[in-house]
Amino acid sequence: MTTECRRGFASDNNSGIHPLLLESIAEANTGHTIAYGDDEFTRRAEATFKEHFGEQAEVFFVVTGTGANVLSLASLTRSYNAIICAETAHINVDECGAPEKFTSCKLVSVPTPDGKLTTENVTRNLHGFGFEHHTQPRVISISQPTEMGTVYTPAEIKSLADLAAEYGMMLHMDGARLANAAVSLSLPFKSFTTDAGVDVLSFGGTKNGMLYGESVVFLKPGLSENFKYLRKQGMQLSSKMRFISAQFETYLNKKVWYHNALHANKMANLLFERTSRIRGITITQPVQANAVFAIVPGDLIRTLQEKYFFYVWDEATSEVRWMTSYDTTPKDIEDFSLFLSSLLS
Amino acid sequence: MTTECRRGFASDNNSGIHPLLLESIAEANTGHTIAYGDDEFTRRAEATFKEHFGEQAEVFFVVTGTGANVLSLASLTRSYNAIICAETAHINVDECGAPEKFTSCKLVSVPTPDGKLTTENVTRNLHGFGFEHHTQPRVISISQPTEMGTVYTPAEIKSLADLAAEYGMMLHMDGARLANAAVSLSLPFKSFTTDAGVDVLSFGGTKNGMLYGESVVFLKPGLSENFKYLRKQGMQLSSKMRFISAQFETYLNKKVWYHNALHANKMANLLFERTSRIRGITITQPVQANAVFAIVPGDLIRTLQEKYFFYVWDEATSEVRWMTSYDTTPKDIEDFSLFLSSLLS
Amino acid sequence: MTTECRRGFASDNNSGIHPLLLESIAEANTGHTIAYGDDEFTRRAEATFKEHFGEQAEVFFVVTGTGANVLSLASLTRSYNAIICAETAHINVDECGAPEKFTSCKLVSVPTPDGKLTTENVTRNLHGFGFEHHTQPRVISISQPTEMGTVYTPAEIKSLADLAAEYGMMLHMDGARLANAAVSLSLPFKSFTTDAGVDVLSFGGTKNGMLYGESVVFLKPGLSENFKYLRKQGMQLSSKMRFISAQFETYLNKKVWYHNALHANKMANLLFERTSRIRGITITQPVQANAVFAIVPGDLIRTLQEKYFFYVWDEATSEVRWMTSYDTTPKDIEDFSLFLSSLLS
Amino acid sequence: MTTECRRGFASDNNSGIHPLLLESIAEANTGHTIAYGDDEFTRRAEATFKEHFGEQAEVFFVVTGTGANVLSLASLTRSYNAIICAETAHINVDECGAPEKFTSCKLVSVPTPDGKLTTENVTRNLHGFGFEHHTQPRVISISQPTEMGTVYTPAEIKSLADLAAEYGMMLHMDGARLANAAVSLSLPFKSFTTDAGVDVLSFGGTKNGMLYGESVVFLKPGLSENFKYLRKQGMQLSSKMRFISAQFETYLNKKVWYHNALHANKMANLLFERTSRIRGITITQPVQANAVFAIVPGDLIRTLQEKYFFYVWDEATSEVRWMTSYDTTPKDIEDFSLFLSSLLS
Repeated sequence: MTTECRRGFASDNNSGIHPLLLESIAEANTGHTIAYGDDEFTRRAEATFKEHFGEQAEVFFVVTGTGANVLSLASLTRSYNAIICAETAHINVDECGAPEKFTSCKLVSVPTPDGKLTTENVTRNLHGFGFEHHTQPRVISISQPTEMGTVYTPAEIKSLADLAAEYGMMLHMDGARLANAAVSLSLPFKSFTTDAGVDVLSFGGTKNGMLYGESVVFLKPGLSENFKYLRKQGMQLSSKMRFISAQFETYLNKKVWYHNALHANKMANLLFERTSRIRGITITQPVQANAVFAIVPGDLIRTLQEKYFFYVWDEATSEVRWMTSYDTTPKDIEDFSLFLSSLLS
Repeated sequence: MTTECRRGFASDNNSGIHPLLLESIAEANTGHTIAYGDDEFTRRAEATFKEHFGEQAEVFFVVTGTGANVLSLASLTRSYNAIICAETAHINVDECGAPEKFTSCKLVSVPTPDGKLTTENVTRNLHGFGFEHHTQPRVISISQPTEMGTVYTPAEIKSLADLAAEYGMMLHMDGARLANAAVSLSLPFKSFTTDAGVDVLSFGGTKNGMLYGESVVFLKPGLSENFKYLRKQGMQLSSKMRFISAQFETYLNKKVWYHNALHANKMANLLFERTSRIRGITITQPVQANAVFAIVPGDLIRTLQEKYFFYVWDEATSEVRWMTSYDTTPKDIEDFSLFLSSLLS
Repeated sequence: MTTECRRGFASDNNSGIHPLLLESIAEANTGHTIAYGDDEFTRRAEATFKEHFGEQAEVFFVVTGTGANVLSLASLTRSYNAIICAETAHINVDECGAPEKFTSCKLVSVPTPDGKLTTENVTRNLHGFGFEHHTQPRVISISQPTEMGTVYTPAEIKSLADLAAEYGMMLHMDGARLANAAVSLSLPFKSFTTDAGVDVLSFGGTKNGMLYGESVVFLKPGLSENFKYLRKQGMQLSSKMRFISAQFETYLNKKVWYHNALHANKMANLLFERTSRIRGITITQPVQANAVFAIVPGDLIRTLQEKYFFYVWDEATSEVRWMTSYDTTPKDIEDFSLFLSSLLS
Repeated sequence: MTTECRRGFASDNNSGIHPLLLESIAEANTGHTIAYGDDEFTRRAEATFKEHFGEQAEVFFVVTGTGANVLSLASLTRSYNAIICAETAHINVDECGAPEKFTSCKLVSVPTPDGKLTTENVTRNLHGFGFEHHTQPRVISISQPTEMGTVYTPAEIKSLADLAAEYGMMLHMDGARLANAAVSLSLPFKSFTTDAGVDVLSFGGTKNGMLYGESVVFLKPGLSENFKYLRKQGMQLSSKMRFISAQFETYLNKKVWYHNALHANKMANLLFERTSRIRGITITQPVQANAVFAIVPGDLIRTLQEKYFFYVWDEATSEVRWMTSYDTTPKDIEDFSLFLSSLLS
């Protein structure tokens, strides 16, 4: 069997499965268990989530990251609500309208320089409360790390949670790459989620080494009562759920999350170091997680893409995005940087 | 690690992963591939589907069986349409309203003795065409095998396809257990899908040994144009799709589908043989695939369930459903039958 | 100007506007008022509703009867709920799937001989509570009078309300023709709505002499909090609302509802008397409001329809529906009956 | 009866019914007609629309302006589409999320100085075609006149229609106040709708003297086939439709549209003249229809609103909106201007 061997920086989900996680699947493959999550693998994984996010945390496993985000939002909203998010948010640009389709809510997108909502840029969009002609703001949704590779501090998150609470709103966090944020901050998950006032978290594993499997984590009590119906109606209830649960347990308990994210972040830093010194390349965002954003001469992009996968972020400005992954090697970086240098010299 | 060891007949998705399919995942776990299906594993799997369903067949992989059904129906309908199905159809009773939620269509459910639609019972529900106060019938949806364990003949399917065509409607088939039907009929898939006039097929693997992975197969040209958007908006686009594709290729090419379904069907027959002779047990449906339906004295059900998983189908009549699977053993059947006998003697 | 002059029994909404109601519109046509219901006409109409339905009653005006039903149901449900109704219910057959579209709920339709739900036929459909694969029953919806022209007694309604309460469900009443029921029962509205335990009522005026205008009446406290957003998002917020409010005030205060419904019901009784004695005509339902259902020889229907408007209710059995209205005259009845007799002699 | 007598500039729908239009209702109130639009009043009104918009034009009457917009958009889209509109568009800010709810589409809102889309500001949002992660742009929606009181020239509209056609998209026009634009441009409707390439038009009457009644006008063939189902499912099918039709016929044939809009526009000009000279008042938009936008010292707004109805457009900048109507009098303007002057002197 010949397999695809071109490597690249397109996305961390171009990588495969981390061996420990594949092993956890094989180990769970023993005999019968009740389907749909009523099994001991899932019970154990749930307990593990409580260790990381606090006793009050309730986790529900789902199958895709879009599913995790959309169902999180659906659990917090009615159809006439508005959801405030950054213009660059995954829910706003990369989910083909799934949030609008399933929640019926309006997404109010906020332009930002770095992918971060702030109390200032959110407050400008908080109006019309009680006025029936306007959608009613209900959720502030942030991504940690952001889609621009930047990372919120716990204080920044706390200030948004406080703002949400002040207006009777909720704070949702898209944590598709939460591990990369935790490593970047050198902080446990709980410190910048539960403790910072986040209400509901999408916590992902697929971008950091899992085969598949995402989760919705309710960080405050009283929010999850009817979630199981939304999950089923949202087509996100996995029948052989034990295999998602088993992965998550290994992911958390054996620190796969940590080692993988640590490596990916390091590789992003190395990529930043190597490419930022190349004349003709401008790095456009602080490199705080596993993404590097750069402006590259437009006429080189095609040539570069022939050898390496990556996405153009903004055609108009020739800004590109390079993502590193748990399996990116220093050699990948060196080769890529050399090739890039050679194109620019 | 102690794992759940109670065995049972609750559902074929209580089984684990067939070793060949798990192996196919491990083999596909090599380096980087583009995410979301633009990879060679998916190309190969697509070609394999054409071998089984005809050159015109176009397959799209999704993550759950409910996803496969709902997106199939969404691809064929507008919000003001009606979908005709059996009262016992999975889409009608077991998907928590997901079809209504995503398609907005009305499900018109038809009472049947055996889970089968017929030209007679469908025709009674075909009215109101062109009348704006009524939903417009657009899809006939059948399950093969049915949720009652019965199997349509190719001629029965053809007659429904002809009826659909006569009214400008489409025929959808829920094939979550299609392999069990193929084995039951001793016919290739194509003969009772494409050749019988089915328009769109949900083809599942999870209930017959896959880890996860389902598919939507367009059997006629011109229907799939915008499906990729529905799949993404329906939260059913898998990022590491190669692992679904690789499983499906092995499933079809290495005849895993056949051997697993053959065994499950045999076990259902054995279960039927063993239990039908027990005084006090009444088998209520012909056993044509891997399900046995039986009326059991109501006061024994709880005792039986303490030792074996299975579902009560109808509380009022004490009708229960026993499903067999690719990993059901003759010993499972013998033990169960003996235990059941002992309760009734 | 020549106007349509063929009369008939198609529907009570084929009639025009009652003169007193048109007058109320003209009287409200004085200068400026704030749009969308923040006006004194609406305040007065709201007070009038409280007189008829109790102090706790809160009314919201909408523009169509389908709007009143759908928004009532939306106010009581989440997307994963089920709504139990008679198979003949307007929400089930005559609203082109609007309830499914706006609420996403499943409609569970119950076959009945006379259009009436009972504790027996509803209870058979109350199952699956807490089971995530099934939609969760949440609303019992009845029509008063039913679409078959029958009228619930207060005791019948009370028993359904009690059943709903027992299961944590709500009782909705479609009162598009509520006045005809009140006249039939010789009871005030409150006695068979609020006092019988109805939670939310669709109360209509258009079928009994209004130009346009329907309403949603919350009969218990605590249900209406977010309704104004649903109304606007449901495209049912009328800008010049004062003209709906003014009509409703006159309708209720000047007893237009009573006189019109009394007349329509009397005409239905007269029609029943005249037609039931015609050999070859079988009346199929008790005549309790303003509808007469009859089986007519199939080959006469077309001839009859050429002279009089009416709908065929069931093509298979040649059952037809004749509705009377506030402006049906005894001569209409006599002429029609004579013509029908002549066709059958 | 004492009626609300405070006058103002809140909205043109604070006015009542123009006498000629009320008369048309009374005239149509003769005997029975078939409900739901199968009547001769509707046939005549349809013919009149063809006179104004071309032989190919097909009109469907609906009950609210939000209904007209949302159903227009629904007729052109699938759930995964995007609709491009100005940030200030009524569909974006004043319909409580009704477009998202009914169409499931994403609204992509474009900041503009004057409420107008241009080929430049639209083109910046036309990307992601064929990419399944992104919503697919399908409709450009403009308001004529805009919500800022500005009016598109036919050439501006044509350029947007050409842009839409180039990308396989459609052009929708929200013409809730179309008459005011026609008067402003001194052009017949057809010249800046049909002839400028608009595909579907929401054409309103309520803001210019009608009691109620709006319409969806398909200006190109082949677009309306299934619209009647959307209208019914959208809860916008009026039972006594003849009274909307009769109003529209009079509105168009007796030039009520023209005289009313001409007067309203004149009054806006007068208001502009009188207020623009007041020291401390800054007019912020060209006055091209019946709206005047002005920045007023923030501390005076409350005092002014106690005597006159109007809306604050932007709290942050103290920008207010004053709408004139067909029944605004020169005295209203003079009194208001004097009062405003007195507050500022």
